[in-house]
Amino acid sequence: MDLQGAFHVYDTTLRDGAQQEGLNLTVADKLAIARQLDGLGVGFIEGGWPGANPKDTEFFRRAAQELELGHARLTAFGATRRAGVRAADDPLVAALRESGAGVVTLVAKSHDRHVELALRTTLQENLAMVRDTVAHLRAEGQQVFLDAEHFFDGYRANRDYALEVLRTAAEAGAEVVALCDTNGGMLPGWVADVVYDVIETTGVRVGIHCHNDTGCAVANTLAAVEAGATHVQGTINGYGERTGNADLVTVVANLELKLDRTVLPAGLLRDATRIAHAVAEVTNVPPSSRQPYVGTSAFAHKAGLHASAIKVDPNLYQHLDPVTVGNDMRLLVSDMAGRASIELKGRELGFDLSDGSPEDKALVSRITQRVKELEARGHTFEAADASFELLLLEEVEGARPSYFEVESWRVITETLDRRSTSDEAVSEATVKLRAGGVRFVVTGEGNGPVNALDQALREAIGQAYPEVAKFELIDYKVRILDQGHGTDAITRVLIETSDGESSWVTVGVGHNVIEASWQALVDGLTFGLRRQQA
Amino acid sequence: MDLQGAFHVYDTTLRDGAQQEGLNLTVADKLAIARQLDGLGVGFIEGGWPGANPKDTEFFRRAAQELELGHARLTAFGATRRAGVRAADDPLVAALRESGAGVVTLVAKSHDRHVELALRTTLQENLAMVRDTVAHLRAEGQQVFLDAEHFFDGYRANRDYALEVLRTAAEAGAEVVALCDTNGGMLPGWVADVVYDVIETTGVRVGIHCHNDTGCAVANTLAAVEAGATHVQGTINGYGERTGNADLVTVVANLELKLDRTVLPAGLLRDATRIAHAVAEVTNVPPSSRQPYVGTSAFAHKAGLHASAIKVDPNLYQHLDPVTVGNDMRLLVSDMAGRASIELKGRELGFDLSDGSPEDKALVSRITQRVKELEARGHTFEAADASFELLLLEEVEGARPSYFEVESWRVITETLDRRSTSDEAVSEATVKLRAGGVRFVVTGEGNGPVNALDQALREAIGQAYPEVAKFELIDYKVRILDQGHGTDAITRVLIETSDGESSWVTVGVGHNVIEASWQALVDGLTFGLRRQQA
Repeated sequence: MDLQGAFHVYDTTLRDGAQQEGLNLTVADKLAIARQLDGLGVGFIEGGWPGANPKDTEFFRRAAQELELGHARLTAFGATRRAGVRAADDPLVAALRESGAGVVTLVAKSHDRHVELALRTTLQENLAMVRDTVAHLRAEGQQVFLDAEHFFDGYRANRDYALEVLRTAAEAGAEVVALCDTNGGMLPGWVADVVYDVIETTGVRVGIHCHNDTGCAVANTLAAVEAGATHVQGTINGYGERTGNADLVTVVANLELKLDRTVLPAGLLRDATRIAHAVAEVTNVPPSSRQPYVGTSAFAHKAGLHASAIKVDPNLYQHLDPVTVGNDMRLLVSDMAGRASIELKGRELGFDLSDGSPEDKALVSRITQRVKELEARGHTFEAADASFELLLLEEVEGARPSYFEVESWRVITETLDRRSTSDEAVSEATVKLRAGGVRFVVTGEGNGPVNALDQALREAIGQAYPEVAKFELIDYKVRILDQGHGTDAITRVLIETSDGESSWVTVGVGHNVIEASWQALVDGLTFGLRRQQA
Repeated sequence: MDLQGAFHVYDTTLRDGAQQEGLNLTVADKLAIARQLDGLGVGFIEGGWPGANPKDTEFFRRAAQELELGHARLTAFGATRRAGVRAADDPLVAALRESGAGVVTLVAKSHDRHVELALRTTLQENLAMVRDTVAHLRAEGQQVFLDAEHFFDGYRANRDYALEVLRTAAEAGAEVVALCDTNGGMLPGWVADVVYDVIETTGVRVGIHCHNDTGCAVANTLAAVEAGATHVQGTINGYGERTGNADLVTVVANLELKLDRTVLPAGLLRDATRIAHAVAEVTNVPPSSRQPYVGTSAFAHKAGLHASAIKVDPNLYQHLDPVTVGNDMRLLVSDMAGRASIELKGRELGFDLSDGSPEDKALVSRITQRVKELEARGHTFEAADASFELLLLEEVEGARPSYFEVESWRVITETLDRRSTSDEAVSEATVKLRAGGVRFVVTGEGNGPVNALDQALREAIGQAYPEVAKFELIDYKVRILDQGHGTDAITRVLIETSDGESSWVTVGVGHNVIEASWQALVDGLTFGLRRQQA
């Protein structure tokens, strides 16, 4: 299909997405993300603003050499020429011309007050800046889009002028004019009305660029498409300044799966979940478990009440098949758990507990009972699949997998003399255990007690099982359960461990946060070793 | 204004929101959240399903005794009677009747296949279940709403039956029928069409309940209102199963600030940011910095390009004034942020910092700077008033209040030999400090390291200041800030201390959870002593 044809999926993660607070991308990060975006099948990847900062200039230089795109066209972003100079003489326009990108998106003011207050030029000169810059780059052989900044606010303030900017750009050769809700304050009905009017009045090809300040970025984008826009801009995972941009994955999934439009090459939407998570690894922004379509919770059900009906027909309880976006239905084992959900969960983990034999029925009863008891004491298995799987193995196989036997452990946290130093406290842990027939006594240091225990434990076990070297504790959460009880409270710890390819979550519970952490650490390593050896 | 009148803002955080993966609320949590919701001015707080599980039953029992609501009405959620029994004889209906809640929201099937497959009864009996249960509870004096589950899917599958369920409920006395997009697959245009048709065809009063599976929960809710719905359901921070429910804060802000509808008591929307964050502290779900209206990034600008224009007219760069929702504009590369809120906060604590003298201006600058530095390192003063007040005192009075001087501390957590015992780990702390001119070396034991430190610290200080005997650590929260960094993470601890009459919250931050806890403990005792002596 022609991704640069009748409908454009235009990604601006590398430029507008990178405006997000706390998000800092290296050139290597940007190249890695561009490859993922290309794998999703977007038509355009806006790489940044060459000439405006050294990083973006370097990105376009390296992209020209290293980046092979199968689907997308690389796009450079930049501004119209400055007031009072020729487009050909403006060094920033030259940087666009020489970026190596086949497409340039020019940002232009379309709001009269912004022209006067931010650009500090006249309305007429702004039109000339648009006309000259578009015409110049077109003459140099580049495809040109226009981002009409603050368009919706500008349209309200001075409709005639805002439309004149669009007309000027189109007449000079801009193929698309993208209407930008730069401040993000629009609602879907308003967007639809404006897009409809723009197309009716000017006949230009309209694109849409939304921010999420009203929580409506996706809906605003869809409203624009339904009103006739044929070019959608967004960012993966909705990254962006303030509340973020329209999440391009959600937009595309809605277009394809809800509105029956084909906007990506066949089959690529099935990689959406993987790609969204891979990009989150690069940006190091924890992905939202509640993200539409691709979040880890997006198809997760607290099954209790509905488990039996889910068995009959899962589609009664999901808006579409998660496979279409590369996600999975998950059943959470919660304190409302019943037998049916334990059976379903077992099946998900590869244990068929539902053949109806008396043995299986007794087994499911036993597991259900244990889950209820443990959850009553503060465990949660809905987030801790790995701990649940260990419990299941223990009941199914008669014993919990075991690779080492702990004798004792101790962890000391202390400060130096406070009057002479302001150093932080340090922690030191000693673990005594037997693994592979050998007794190990190992001491580890850390910047906290759990860190120190983790170091010591992994060093001790690693002598018998070298594969633990690649395990890494990647997340650690603590929850005090019975708030209001202060020092008597029960503490629940969730630990996520990674082997570099996948990760798993284990749980520990107790009055003592260190003890609870220890349980979760031990489960995490045990589960990882079991998986390595399976 | 009449919050239970022409337009309903209906919160279901405590019931549907609690379905979120990983979210587990205690009864005390639920009571604390209900108080916050009441502070926002919602009309209805759905507290849970009495009779369905012991926690919710206990919640309604305690709510009847402890929960004083100024704005909202407490609402009980439950199902229509079971097939084949009288409503008066169904124990779950009895639990609703006896919940003490003045309002009951009954969930009913309106999708024919769900009636047959999940309820396993006939379409006729389902109608009778709706009619009987509504009529029974109305006769017993309760106000009744109906949640029409899976309504939108049901409407597509069998419009006549779906409408018949609504009519039946309304005729039996249900005041509102809320159309639920239970699977969350709708888009705004579809919702508007259905709501319009329902109102045209049946004349019932319509409510709307949306999930965010297409990223359109907020827009769908607004579309329903624009089509005539006069009752909106949602959850604070958008908590909920899968991708969550419609974020009630965003919905309400859009209704009030974008669509000019008055749906909350005057002025309360200005507490939205504080309340959203306070609830997040209770749920221990890290708030999204990109959350519309109330996120910490929602009005944050990477100012570079626009700084001067922002100074001329900030409204050129924001969709509305953040003060309207209690948030602040933040300029990420400048130090303009925060002065106004520091002044406000100071005034709240009894320090007038805004008289305009050069000294006061310098003081506010200094405090603002320190708050920003500390917040950049992970502190939060939103929840930790007492720590902020200590910082303020330090700057205003030239020195931090100090009642004791810590020399050093140490805490050991260890297990006995694991092979011979299954006892939990024990912790022992030793604190060395000077108070009232005397040096104390005290060792305390506890069921966790912080508990042990707290014991030792209070015993040592108590010898010089007997009043600490009545201080009690009543809540302890831990949050890992930079998730994904595993063992390198920064930890934030919030500790709530009580003197039996009031309580105060202090914060500590560091790589080491014990060190962070220590800071918060010391601040907590210092603040308490200051208050006793003031």
